[in-house]
Amino acid sequence: MKALKFDGKLKLVRDAALPRRGGEALVQVICAGICNTDLEIIKGYAGFRGIPGHEFVGRVVESPNDILLGSRVVGEINVGCTQCARCLNSDPRHCKDRTVLGIKNRDGAFAEYLSLPAENLVEVPASMADEAAIFTEPLAAALNIVEQVSIGSSADVVVIGDGKLAQLIVLVLAQTGCSITVIGKHSEKLDLALGFGANMVRLVDGDLDTEWQGRFDIAIEASGSASGLATSQKLVKPRGTIVLKSTHQGLTALDTSLVVVNELSILGSRCGRFAPALSLIENSRLNPSLLISRRLPLEDGLYGFEQASLAGTMKVILQMA
Amino acid sequence: MKALKFDGKLKLVRDAALPRRGGEALVQVICAGICNTDLEIIKGYAGFRGIPGHEFVGRVVESPNDILLGSRVVGEINVGCTQCARCLNSDPRHCKDRTVLGIKNRDGAFAEYLSLPAENLVEVPASMADEAAIFTEPLAAALNIVEQVSIGSSADVVVIGDGKLAQLIVLVLAQTGCSITVIGKHSEKLDLALGFGANMVRLVDGDLDTEWQGRFDIAIEASGSASGLATSQKLVKPRGTIVLKSTHQGLTALDTSLVVVNELSILGSRCGRFAPALSLIENSRLNPSLLISRRLPLEDGLYGFEQASLAGTMKVILQMA
Repeated sequence: MKALKFDGKLKLVRDAALPRRGGEALVQVICAGICNTDLEIIKGYAGFRGIPGHEFVGRVVESPNDILLGSRVVGEINVGCTQCARCLNSDPRHCKDRTVLGIKNRDGAFAEYLSLPAENLVEVPASMADEAAIFTEPLAAALNIVEQVSIGSSADVVVIGDGKLAQLIVLVLAQTGCSITVIGKHSEKLDLALGFGANMVRLVDGDLDTEWQGRFDIAIEASGSASGLATSQKLVKPRGTIVLKSTHQGLTALDTSLVVVNELSILGSRCGRFAPALSLIENSRLNPSLLISRRLPLEDGLYGFEQASLAGTMKVILQMA
Repeated sequence: MKALKFDGKLKLVRDAALPRRGGEALVQVICAGICNTDLEIIKGYAGFRGIPGHEFVGRVVESPNDILLGSRVVGEINVGCTQCARCLNSDPRHCKDRTVLGIKNRDGAFAEYLSLPAENLVEVPASMADEAAIFTEPLAAALNIVEQVSIGSSADVVVIGDGKLAQLIVLVLAQTGCSITVIGKHSEKLDLALGFGANMVRLVDGDLDTEWQGRFDIAIEASGSASGLATSQKLVKPRGTIVLKSTHQGLTALDTSLVVVNELSILGSRCGRFAPALSLIENSRLNPSLLISRRLPLEDGLYGFEQASLAGTMKVILQMA
């Protein structure tokens, strides 16, 4: 099959073996989105080798006991050992022996086919377009924030970043009724955030105004940039919370004394659950075209990665079929 | 009066003016402890200029309305504006216009006299020795941890560091019935931690054994060293909590991706309340001599700072009277 493969360098290959893992479903990928994590992976993040890609919509073509056979599905990306306490509690997201689709010891979605356990797959409602369903994974990640942090309607929240993940976070925050400010570097993306439910946006390219410092209860770092943490530290009140959503290669300089003196909480946040994300896509009537910059065939995947890494780009979708 | 003064360099001065602030009490300092924060301050931390020192026992010699006049006291170190919402809620610890004894815009305790509002002062029980009462401030800071984080008896907690603050943290943790492991670099200090209530200690000078990684629910960083955060990240389980207690000059390199992937919480923790700390000193029959390395007159304060900065030293106490 055709696939994008990373072995220190990203390549298009035409002879990749079909991904058959015993006891799992075989999914024909319809389309897959390029995420910031994918861009970091090809810079070396997480030491991944193989086929990247973890945001996808596909169709089940083989499955044990014919579960979901023929269905259009999205899939949770963590696959646990099934034996440890976390897996037995139906949450493999922190199983220490987990594989993660396109991120850790498991080939991913930038290919014509992928393999996942049937229990990871969730059927997409018939009325939902592929282009909307493909946002299930990042939207689930955004929803995970409100599972971790109690955000009431009186909370004053700032989102750092105006990219695709930041927009989905705004969509999620808007459900809580809290006040949402978005700080970003691109005026057209900031305008978009207003449509997703932000109450205020602020174009910042350089130092923050002093009046913005120490104003917010919660800062959500979704800029994908190492400087986002320092910006978050400036924005939150004493005893405020910073939620980190982006993963990137390399170390970030942190003034830990400021964390201590202001008694800040810094909280890492990763994958969420798919079912509530699909519901939110349906109920919010998410217009995916606002978030999609390019649709390209898998054949043009290398070009797609180049496009995805440009500052102005939102989601780039690779079409397999 | 005599005092230690820092103006970029720490000096003994003999002609410092008496610290008289309108409406405040004047306290004759009996003795004061050198804390790690003081060692950082003379390296430039917090940009402080003036008389450092914030752990003290003293006697009230002047006071508005004669409140506590003649009493032996310890004192909470944050002085708020009295007008903002936090101050009106009787918690000036995060007032943005606060001064902090010997740390921020207020001369401190390495002097014959200091000034604090009478409401910051707490009387020391007659039966308690000066050498025990002087641990009120750091013990209050240790107690603040259990106000911020719920630590049940089933929690598996690791303390990074074996210095004086770490020992007081062990004393506090021992009240919760949790399992306490202390990791440090000095075998004699680790032995001491066993006496304070640690269940297990581990001498580590270099890389941690793999078997120790990801084992703990909560890590408390009290080593005062920049490497303590990275060590804490290795020690805690996914979704674990890291409490930062030490302040130090400079930036710390943090792998934020590890925070995100493991969904860690990093929590800054600073000052606590004095009344419960005094109670714990009484009830635990804290033997202060275990924690005190040297007692020196204020005259020998510069030498005291040198001694306090040596790796093997516990608390150095300066005697004013």
